[in-house]
Amino acid sequence: MLELQSLSIDQYGFIGNVFSFGLAVMASTTLFLWLMMSSAAPTYRMAITISGLVTAIAAYHYLQIMLSWDGAASVASGEVVVSGEGFNRAYRYVDWLLTVPLLLVELILVMKLSKAETLSRSIRLGGAAALMIVLGYPGEVAGNVGTRAIFWILSMIPFIYIVRELVIGLKESISKQPDNVKGLISKAAILVVASWAFYPIVYLLPLLGVTGGSAIVVVETGYTIADIMAKAVFGLLIFVIAIRKSEAEADVNAVEAAPAEQASPVKKGS
Amino acid sequence: MLELQSLSIDQYGFIGNVFSFGLAVMASTTLFLWLMMSSAAPTYRMAITISGLVTAIAAYHYLQIMLSWDGAASVASGEVVVSGEGFNRAYRYVDWLLTVPLLLVELILVMKLSKAETLSRSIRLGGAAALMIVLGYPGEVAGNVGTRAIFWILSMIPFIYIVRELVIGLKESISKQPDNVKGLISKAAILVVASWAFYPIVYLLPLLGVTGGSAIVVVETGYTIADIMAKAVFGLLIFVIAIRKSEAEADVNAVEAAPAEQASPVKKGS
Repeated sequence: MLELQSLSIDQYGFIGNVFSFGLAVMASTTLFLWLMMSSAAPTYRMAITISGLVTAIAAYHYLQIMLSWDGAASVASGEVVVSGEGFNRAYRYVDWLLTVPLLLVELILVMKLSKAETLSRSIRLGGAAALMIVLGYPGEVAGNVGTRAIFWILSMIPFIYIVRELVIGLKESISKQPDNVKGLISKAAILVVASWAFYPIVYLLPLLGVTGGSAIVVVETGYTIADIMAKAVFGLLIFVIAIRKSEAEADVNAVEAAPAEQASPVKKGS
Repeated sequence: MLELQSLSIDQYGFIGNVFSFGLAVMASTTLFLWLMMSSAAPTYRMAITISGLVTAIAAYHYLQIMLSWDGAASVASGEVVVSGEGFNRAYRYVDWLLTVPLLLVELILVMKLSKAETLSRSIRLGGAAALMIVLGYPGEVAGNVGTRAIFWILSMIPFIYIVRELVIGLKESISKQPDNVKGLISKAAILVVASWAFYPIVYLLPLLGVTGGSAIVVVETGYTIADIMAKAVFGLLIFVIAIRKSEAEADVNAVEAAPAEQASPVKKGS
């Protein structure tokens, strides 16, 4: 239902630039996270490693999306000419299938819960996230509005479960977090919920009568902004939480190690 | 016998997405293993390095497979048009020739057996694995069902030898492993056997009368899932075993170093 031939030259070029922007943001976030990883205490490095993996996987898929976009059409004698190869919408879904469970795991890991709670929450949230993506795909590629609506409803079930878990289920665990990060962890959970709210809205647009070239512009730009919020901005927030917790724990250790001396921070990594 | 012209556009696109998914999983597992390597004790880093090598080699071959798939056909006027280049089935076998012996070595290394046992088991299992792959290839590319059946039987001989070694031969060595990883090492050996069971079944499908486009979908998707289990999931399991053994040994060292003090964990990096 989203046909490339309805795009103007400007729209076709604009979306290509949006994809390139997405690739640049994801790749540079990955590099930042991994280069700075050693400033966090070892306990938090897995959370940062996975934050960087999420943006790395997204960078790879934005590259694929960009190449598929370039191959799907070309500009000739003032018009967008469709090549027949088709624009591969599946890359976004393959990306989400891998990254959405992982970014929930990031949030759980940075909270440093007990091993049992970490495992059970990762499996429940990660599994629900994977199910949500799998149920969304058939509607995305369907040619008719009815199928799109049915799969929208189906994938909203795990979506609502995850939101409920993040807003209510994690409340007690968040209340046990150190004071200097409690607010940030709540913000990270809210950022997930808020950025995820984009996706079902963008997905619904073709049902709301938004069609033609501008529908493609809104859908692709909307998904890209939501991806940047949910992966890059979220990953940086996880990084800040990891650094703050590392600093607080270094202070506590310093006090315990040298109770008679002044409780100065041993190393307050940047 | 598996001819690309029998594929529908959707099937052709789906298999391309499966290859891209395989590439993303293998590459991100490699990065995770190598970035997290320093959390394991130095004794176990060779096992983790090799786990990452296996997935890195697989990532490279999935890239080659994906490019070969893109070059072998194209979509034009609503049909899959075969280019004549041919889809290179050899990449999977070149990959397996390198990775299958290495992933058996991973398992042996993480057990930290004596030097003599490590060497002899690596040579026997690695050699049998290489032989298994070499004997499978002529049947895979053969045009007729008879040749495929003969080489299936031949390559099952080293296959059964390896399974026997993993299930019976390693039993005594596994029983000497620390309690906190004994179950995981058994699981790793079972994962190898279970994921490997896929390959001869997938290989046999064309003999069982499964032909046409859906045969190609089943074969390529089946091999990819088996590869992900045998390399990425297996590599992560080896990583968890290495971390648990490192933690257990750090605790023991802490107790030995300071017998009078409280036996607190020196560093329990996640």
